Amino acid sequence: MTNATRTETDSLGTIDIPADRLWGPQTERARRLFRIGTERFPPGLIRAVGLQKQAAAEANARLGELPADIAAAIAAAAGEVAEGRHDAEFPLPVWQTGSGTQTNMNANEVISNLANRALGQPLGSRRPVHPNDHVNRGQSSNDSFPTVMHVAAAEAVSRRLIPALGVLLASLSRRARDWEAIVKIGRTHMMDAVPVTLGQEAAAWARQVEHGIARLQDALPRVLELAQGGTAAGTGLNRHKDFPQVFAEIIAARTGLPFRPNPNTFEGMGAHDALVELSGAMNTIAVSLNKIGNDVRLLGSGPRAGFSELVIPADGLSSSIMPGKTNPTQSEALTMVAAQVMGNHVAVTIGAAQGHLELNVFKPVIIHNVLQSAGLLADAAESFAANMVDKLEPNHARIADNLAKSLMLVTALNPRIGYDKAVAIAKLALAEDITLKAAAARLGHVSEADFDRWVVPAEMVHPGTTLDGGG
Amino acid sequence: MTNATRTETDSLGTIDIPADRLWGPQTERARRLFRIGTERFPPGLIRAVGLQKQAAAEANARLGELPADIAAAIAAAAGEVAEGRHDAEFPLPVWQTGSGTQTNMNANEVISNLANRALGQPLGSRRPVHPNDHVNRGQSSNDSFPTVMHVAAAEAVSRRLIPALGVLLASLSRRARDWEAIVKIGRTHMMDAVPVTLGQEAAAWARQVEHGIARLQDALPRVLELAQGGTAAGTGLNRHKDFPQVFAEIIAARTGLPFRPNPNTFEGMGAHDALVELSGAMNTIAVSLNKIGNDVRLLGSGPRAGFSELVIPADGLSSSIMPGKTNPTQSEALTMVAAQVMGNHVAVTIGAAQGHLELNVFKPVIIHNVLQSAGLLADAAESFAANMVDKLEPNHARIADNLAKSLMLVTALNPRIGYDKAVAIAKLALAEDITLKAAAARLGHVSEADFDRWVVPAEMVHPGTTLDGGG
Amino acid sequence: MTNATRTETDSLGTIDIPADRLWGPQTERARRLFRIGTERFPPGLIRAVGLQKQAAAEANARLGELPADIAAAIAAAAGEVAEGRHDAEFPLPVWQTGSGTQTNMNANEVISNLANRALGQPLGSRRPVHPNDHVNRGQSSNDSFPTVMHVAAAEAVSRRLIPALGVLLASLSRRARDWEAIVKIGRTHMMDAVPVTLGQEAAAWARQVEHGIARLQDALPRVLELAQGGTAAGTGLNRHKDFPQVFAEIIAARTGLPFRPNPNTFEGMGAHDALVELSGAMNTIAVSLNKIGNDVRLLGSGPRAGFSELVIPADGLSSSIMPGKTNPTQSEALTMVAAQVMGNHVAVTIGAAQGHLELNVFKPVIIHNVLQSAGLLADAAESFAANMVDKLEPNHARIADNLAKSLMLVTALNPRIGYDKAVAIAKLALAEDITLKAAAARLGHVSEADFDRWVVPAEMVHPGTTLDGGG
Amino acid sequence: MTNATRTETDSLGTIDIPADRLWGPQTERARRLFRIGTERFPPGLIRAVGLQKQAAAEANARLGELPADIAAAIAAAAGEVAEGRHDAEFPLPVWQTGSGTQTNMNANEVISNLANRALGQPLGSRRPVHPNDHVNRGQSSNDSFPTVMHVAAAEAVSRRLIPALGVLLASLSRRARDWEAIVKIGRTHMMDAVPVTLGQEAAAWARQVEHGIARLQDALPRVLELAQGGTAAGTGLNRHKDFPQVFAEIIAARTGLPFRPNPNTFEGMGAHDALVELSGAMNTIAVSLNKIGNDVRLLGSGPRAGFSELVIPADGLSSSIMPGKTNPTQSEALTMVAAQVMGNHVAVTIGAAQGHLELNVFKPVIIHNVLQSAGLLADAAESFAANMVDKLEPNHARIADNLAKSLMLVTALNPRIGYDKAVAIAKLALAEDITLKAAAARLGHVSEADFDRWVVPAEMVHPGTTLDGGG
Repeated sequence: MTNATRTETDSLGTIDIPADRLWGPQTERARRLFRIGTERFPPGLIRAVGLQKQAAAEANARLGELPADIAAAIAAAAGEVAEGRHDAEFPLPVWQTGSGTQTNMNANEVISNLANRALGQPLGSRRPVHPNDHVNRGQSSNDSFPTVMHVAAAEAVSRRLIPALGVLLASLSRRARDWEAIVKIGRTHMMDAVPVTLGQEAAAWARQVEHGIARLQDALPRVLELAQGGTAAGTGLNRHKDFPQVFAEIIAARTGLPFRPNPNTFEGMGAHDALVELSGAMNTIAVSLNKIGNDVRLLGSGPRAGFSELVIPADGLSSSIMPGKTNPTQSEALTMVAAQVMGNHVAVTIGAAQGHLELNVFKPVIIHNVLQSAGLLADAAESFAANMVDKLEPNHARIADNLAKSLMLVTALNPRIGYDKAVAIAKLALAEDITLKAAAARLGHVSEADFDRWVVPAEMVHPGTTLDGGG
Repeated sequence: MTNATRTETDSLGTIDIPADRLWGPQTERARRLFRIGTERFPPGLIRAVGLQKQAAAEANARLGELPADIAAAIAAAAGEVAEGRHDAEFPLPVWQTGSGTQTNMNANEVISNLANRALGQPLGSRRPVHPNDHVNRGQSSNDSFPTVMHVAAAEAVSRRLIPALGVLLASLSRRARDWEAIVKIGRTHMMDAVPVTLGQEAAAWARQVEHGIARLQDALPRVLELAQGGTAAGTGLNRHKDFPQVFAEIIAARTGLPFRPNPNTFEGMGAHDALVELSGAMNTIAVSLNKIGNDVRLLGSGPRAGFSELVIPADGLSSSIMPGKTNPTQSEALTMVAAQVMGNHVAVTIGAAQGHLELNVFKPVIIHNVLQSAGLLADAAESFAANMVDKLEPNHARIADNLAKSLMLVTALNPRIGYDKAVAIAKLALAEDITLKAAAARLGHVSEADFDRWVVPAEMVHPGTTLDGGG
Repeated sequence: MTNATRTETDSLGTIDIPADRLWGPQTERARRLFRIGTERFPPGLIRAVGLQKQAAAEANARLGELPADIAAAIAAAAGEVAEGRHDAEFPLPVWQTGSGTQTNMNANEVISNLANRALGQPLGSRRPVHPNDHVNRGQSSNDSFPTVMHVAAAEAVSRRLIPALGVLLASLSRRARDWEAIVKIGRTHMMDAVPVTLGQEAAAWARQVEHGIARLQDALPRVLELAQGGTAAGTGLNRHKDFPQVFAEIIAARTGLPFRPNPNTFEGMGAHDALVELSGAMNTIAVSLNKIGNDVRLLGSGPRAGFSELVIPADGLSSSIMPGKTNPTQSEALTMVAAQVMGNHVAVTIGAAQGHLELNVFKPVIIHNVLQSAGLLADAAESFAANMVDKLEPNHARIADNLAKSLMLVTALNPRIGYDKAVAIAKLALAEDITLKAAAARLGHVSEADFDRWVVPAEMVHPGTTLDGGG
Repeated sequence: MTNATRTETDSLGTIDIPADRLWGPQTERARRLFRIGTERFPPGLIRAVGLQKQAAAEANARLGELPADIAAAIAAAAGEVAEGRHDAEFPLPVWQTGSGTQTNMNANEVISNLANRALGQPLGSRRPVHPNDHVNRGQSSNDSFPTVMHVAAAEAVSRRLIPALGVLLASLSRRARDWEAIVKIGRTHMMDAVPVTLGQEAAAWARQVEHGIARLQDALPRVLELAQGGTAAGTGLNRHKDFPQVFAEIIAARTGLPFRPNPNTFEGMGAHDALVELSGAMNTIAVSLNKIGNDVRLLGSGPRAGFSELVIPADGLSSSIMPGKTNPTQSEALTMVAAQVMGNHVAVTIGAAQGHLELNVFKPVIIHNVLQSAGLLADAAESFAANMVDKLEPNHARIADNLAKSLMLVTALNPRIGYDKAVAIAKLALAEDITLKAAAARLGHVSEADFDRWVVPAEMVHPGTTLDGGG
């Protein structure tokens, strides 16, 4: 940015703008009025801004609301924005007008300047392409920005988060198969319990991730509804009656996602329940990932004085003081992301709850958190799959040892001798630090031969060990 | 409760129990160990406990795992619990063992005592019906209590919350129709904006509630999956191989809800993502209801110095100091409920995120919050419908006055004279405190005749006012 | 409650009230209008209601605002309410008018009826003691209910929560002393780390609780400020100029807590930041207790295949299926309470954030959550102290074994041979499953004699092991 | 960054590093392993990293733990980091190892390289200044990073947030004085209530901010306690016995803030309750600011069909479709920041609650949120003061009109004629749309002369209007 400026005029008066910047007076004023924080909208949102303006111009052209040449110039300029070629021309923070108006005006100004420049006019000329009358034709920030929010969120979830969770699901499912024959001690209340397989543990993690993907897919239909067409207050004032339908078709074709008009644009502008719902799905996924990260951390604890059933990959990241120490660093990154997503969900909830009449004015904070959550979950899921799950190794010796000494193998005796006698065996074994078999024999409840026939860990990891009806 | 006691013995030793109580030593020990809080499980959960034990007995009988007479006695006793006849025999607080084990054992003890008493045995006899070997046959707290949680949650949502939201939806939809011809000023950023109808405002509220019902319905399928059959750690140890399927069929038949076995019982015991998801749906509904309650409060503000477009019903609840004051008390109750549900959702999220390996031990706090949220939302929705929405009256005079003086009617001129000239008209009218028509005429941008033809509020509440393409 | 009713009249008309009930028409109307939830205010709040009305009557009498006989009758009746003798006469739910007006009117009605009855008049006579003109003299719900909230919260924290945390602090401090000589393996990232003492671990828990008490004490001063005197909107209309001071003195004398008038009653009625702050202190305590509960759970995991360094007390609460299993049930109750308190804090935050101008109308939900959090934390802290901390036993054999095999003892060599060589020793020992000493010798970095002199776990649990400067 | 690389070796093997980068193998490995999100630590944290390493080198030199020349080289290099000259050399994301180890190692590597380069050695030489043995001397990430967190948080709050809140406090206090004579209608339940002054409203906002500053100051003492000295696990292994004291003195001198050693370093490393407490103070401030932003939005609503008592400054930011519309954009930015801070607080709470034994591994997410909240609140408070509060103008005409027509002026009659008669007057005036005076006269309760003498709004904004005891 040079120090040269150009002077533009708007309804408040004149204002100086860096000479080579594509933005105009509204963006410049906002830059000065909102010196708050360092958070900016991510590229995915700027892309959606470009897509929205492009589709609007094309729809208006098709419906006779804009001259073809004006519309074409707008569409071309907006296309460049969508491609990420002008991200630096969107300097405004998240913390601005709550309708996202300043980002919408930023887009109107950048695109009109790009279009006018392509048509041989200087920056700031506002003609032949006017930021409001043409680029914003038949639109308001109030319907355009929620449309941008939904397009950005739907793309982030469909194109990035769901595939990333798919990577983690595949990784976990592979381990479930790898480990299906490894019988180990189960733990409930974090205490020694009856046997399970390591594969069953991995399969449960996989199931959580699989459900997470389904939860996102269930939330998407309402995100695919676009408020575009509501204009200023939901009524559709000043836009062509067929604009919402044509607009949605263009966006759907260009993104490959089945966007459609929200039949109640008031709902789509005054509320953002659809994004609360989506954030809620991500909150549930964070809950799942927190559990998975914790479980791996627990099973990998040690290497000698912990559970030590999984060997955490040596990632080369050292303790700065304890030589040779390996830590579950990927679990830590993953669970930190989970905490952030849960916090973000509260911010989204609080913002969305405070809409007033025809407009919710917490739009930027809502979409900021939704996109951050989607991005973090996607990145963390892939990182955890590649750098942790794929590299975990079972510690066979420790697994066998932990299983062999478990007192809860006694549970297999319940259907044979009843719960009360089984309690007595377990308590004796613990108190005397002897084996269950020895305790059973000493109490006279089970012969050694019966014990060996009835208490078989590998047979305890599937149903069917009932007395009469097992299969 | 008399002071008489009976003495029972369990693996820890003897313990005195109030003589006429149906519970046994495990419940009595828990009563003494968890003197925490006053919160108890609601009747809907105790009902689900009864249903679960009843269905388990019947399934075990059908599969040959229990003698027919024992099973029949258990089923009859459990049926009484399900009917709410023994709620007082469940004295334990929410704040107990995190698996809900004590409530499951409470049920085992109450039901075995009921069954034994019916079979002529004294309380505490543990025969012929044993609390563990028979009532808990083929079960663990670890799979039974999550089953109870899902049955209680599914019933609360299906039988109570969805119908109650349906009442509110009907009420709001009726007002949307009643008020469809009332043209009024819209508000965005809480500032005067272009016209809308009062019916459109009500229809947006209705749409939010309609979506809320859909969100619950989308969350239910995963709640309808039951962990029953996992027994101690998810493997199904000690239960008949067909038990989960038969159990689910019986529960489904008795409740009329399509419950089915969770194909991954590890997921259903170690995690409670399905309830986080359901709580997330209720969190979204709380967001919606907060907006609706706030909007009514705003439109009803006054009666003289506020927006004053709706007349809040005179409910007879007076200010203790300001005579004759009417307040939007139902909005206040509704939005307080919304705040509670949002907080409950965080408690559910935090509890569910902390499962460890084969068991999540935040089960009681999770289901306590889920059921409280469901109940509060249902009651508040019905109360708001009956005591607020149904009794609201439009203040026609104020609506007309607010509309007539609105400066934002100028928006209709955008397609005629362009945005920049329209700005000039609005700013002049505001500065000089004159009408838009006078300002337009003074600036020479629009003749009075054109103004009257172009600026027609009733035509501004629907799309189609574009220059060329309107319909 | 019999079926007989008496008929009373208020500004809305007549209404039937159960004949033997002390409440009046405002309470009865509210009962019918708010059929929401089962949550009621706890006895501590009803006590505060009684204290507030009693002090108001006495202050008004002292200031000449009420005749002595009227004031005495009110004070006597209010005293009975404060003693908990009429809790059943406060039937209204938390989910009512957001100013708590209905509970204030409930108090006005109950107390005037009690006073009039004592003066020989029938229930409902409204004379000689009038609920508004006398019981509510110089007050509004808008200043009285926040006063009640602060009195109830300050008593709950000062009289119940801080002492209960003191019990836990004493218990933890005792264990810190008991265990100060027990050297054990430390764990960071949940992985084996350098030695610590079990006493150091307990002392850290104690420190958290000690700070928690300090946090409450820091938050109390702003809770001790009472809004009483603001009357309807903060201005103090209709009350004696000295009323706030006299009132606060009476309340302070009766409770033994240094209550004083809030110098800005607008702040005390329009906002509840002081209770958000107090809830924040409890949220921090919940964070602390969650950590303590988790640590005990981790150290007690086993008994054979976990960390197993602490022996969890056998509380007699059994698994319903796994015979003889002991679980950390008190940790579970404690961490569930923590989750609830964190959720409650969000509800308080959301409610308090939505005040409007002269009044916040989320008062009942705020105080409901604050008092629930205080009560739960107090009960859970005491239960955890008595049933868990006091009964924990170190597992000396396991502690010694875990320590002996730790690879991180190598850290003591850093100042002797440098970090890089120490890494090599640790990695060799792990890879070959040999001792550190053997690995050190094999690599030629440290002689066995030096190893024995330099690597002494008991000397590693305090500073001073640096090469040159240790003490 | 050129494409040239240098190759370095660490315990895992060789790794290529961009040739001109100051970081080393540990940083490079972490860069590759944590490709998560775009969030980086802010300059304030990198500054604290530099301060921490500088003070550690100086303390070690003073205590004889490091040669003077080595220490001097480290201190000089660390000083450059503290000055912000090498921020680009800290490329790691927030989402890394949960102890912040990678950022600590990043600092060790950058500073050793800077020091070695100054001493004539090439990058990567690890001599004469070794990243672990010298730069990290007597330290661990486990005590250094929490120290960095506390230094950064204390500076952010003391140097930035408290002063910014002071600006807002001054602005609000000025308006409280400016407006102290403006009598206006009060509003409770958002409904017309008894008179207040506009100055009283502003004074309440000021009081909230004043308390917010006090809350931060109350939270700071525990933030000023530094974990430095705990080294690996809290015991202080491998550091000089006087290191913590000397270190704290140096940091205190350099920052001007009274840092001191945490007497329980276990608490300072295993828990982050002090930052939860600080975040709780910021959460309370967010609650306050949300209320203030909302109140301004409400009073500024209009300009014609709202409350319209304040004139929102024309900031030149236009609606993209509604010409000439002015919106409360600063209230919107402020309340969005409030929502974010409340969400951040939940993330901090969840992260801090999950510490395990000697280490909490949610450090980066905790400090990320704490610093973001502090920065956002500071910026938003200043922006709101300068761009909103300072520019608000009372709308005197509307204020007078709203006051004059208020029905709640009737409250002044309570002490004269009793509550019940006052109710009748208010209800008649509302029903007939007449003045209170007319209604009072028609009912015969108050003569016109008495009405004029008793109902004087300007006298209703202070206490003292009681019948007998007023002053």
